[in-house]
Amino acid sequence: MNRIITISREFGSGGREFGRRLSENLGCAYYDQEIVKEIAKRTELSVKYVQQVMGHRPVSSYPIHIGRSFRMMSDPSLDQSQTIFREQCSILREIAAKSDCVIVGRCADYILHDAQPFRIFVYADMASKVSRCREKNYEKEDLTDKELERRIQSINRSRASYYEYYTGQKWGGRIHYDLCINTTQTNIKEMTAAITRLFEK
Amino acid sequence: MNRIITISREFGSGGREFGRRLSENLGCAYYDQEIVKEIAKRTELSVKYVQQVMGHRPVSSYPIHIGRSFRMMSDPSLDQSQTIFREQCSILREIAAKSDCVIVGRCADYILHDAQPFRIFVYADMASKVSRCREKNYEKEDLTDKELERRIQSINRSRASYYEYYTGQKWGGRIHYDLCINTTQTNIKEMTAAITRLFEK
Repeated sequence: MNRIITISREFGSGGREFGRRLSENLGCAYYDQEIVKEIAKRTELSVKYVQQVMGHRPVSSYPIHIGRSFRMMSDPSLDQSQTIFREQCSILREIAAKSDCVIVGRCADYILHDAQPFRIFVYADMASKVSRCREKNYEKEDLTDKELERRIQSINRSRASYYEYYTGQKWGGRIHYDLCINTTQTNIKEMTAAITRLFEK
Repeated sequence: MNRIITISREFGSGGREFGRRLSENLGCAYYDQEIVKEIAKRTELSVKYVQQVMGHRPVSSYPIHIGRSFRMMSDPSLDQSQTIFREQCSILREIAAKSDCVIVGRCADYILHDAQPFRIFVYADMASKVSRCREKNYEKEDLTDKELERRIQSINRSRASYYEYYTGQKWGGRIHYDLCINTTQTNIKEMTAAITRLFEK
């Protein structure tokens, strides 16, 4: 069985950097935005739209009482979310069957449960997330720290809600991960070097 | 400044083994029961009594309404808990000032905050905790799995409540730790070897 490592991460915590470094150290495949692009290709939807759908828990476009009155009525918005999620599942399974890899996000820890992935959750305190976003010049916007903080909170709330909708599990709940790494005071390069050792054959 | 590593751990998760191995790999001091013994010596209380007090959140021996009516009345049970906690704090600070070390439990992550400890939380799922306790022949009692599970839950509830009483922080809340390690499917020896690398100079 291939060695699958999944990285779930708070926005601003450096989880993507951690995943990239880990795959480089191990010399194995790395998947992140590639999955979104492949879904877009297969569903003939735009990358931007797929990204938007994958960043939020599905919401019915009809008011709930209409949904209740006309049970058979289909909801195009919900249908598309389901189609995208189905493609996501099948792409992740193909990837996992192909070779050892590191996968960032996309509920991969849950979807690939049968492949016994090593599941990592990366997080940090708010000040550290704000400062990391500043370093990365996030969206090149002139946001105050308070505004940036609200933006980070909102993205992380969406990630949690998307994850919980599809998995029924608490995003970041420690029992669902093998390792939870706080990057607040940790040098990501050194931490990745240490964790790499776990997987060296 | 000395390198202090603190290990908080769920009962049955193998946190003590993790801490012991880590200190052996790093060739540094290891403190666990030694702290209880030193407190007993300094307070002239028995090791068993100190251990019992340190395993539970303090409870007033007077009904609350009496406490309210006679504000100046001292409560010997509460006083003793406070004395033990004060000794615990001063012993931990002495230990931290002496040399690099690994400290298991005793709210050391919180008490030694100024020494910037690397804070590890070790946990596992219930089935794994039960099986680890069986391996260790815990208390040599003929408990059913269900009874052992209840015993483990009760000890962990006491640890959480003790920690939260003295620190005001949630025991096991990921933001209070640098690393949270799930030992359910992890080989502790291999994990310790990897984490050791983080601290090698």
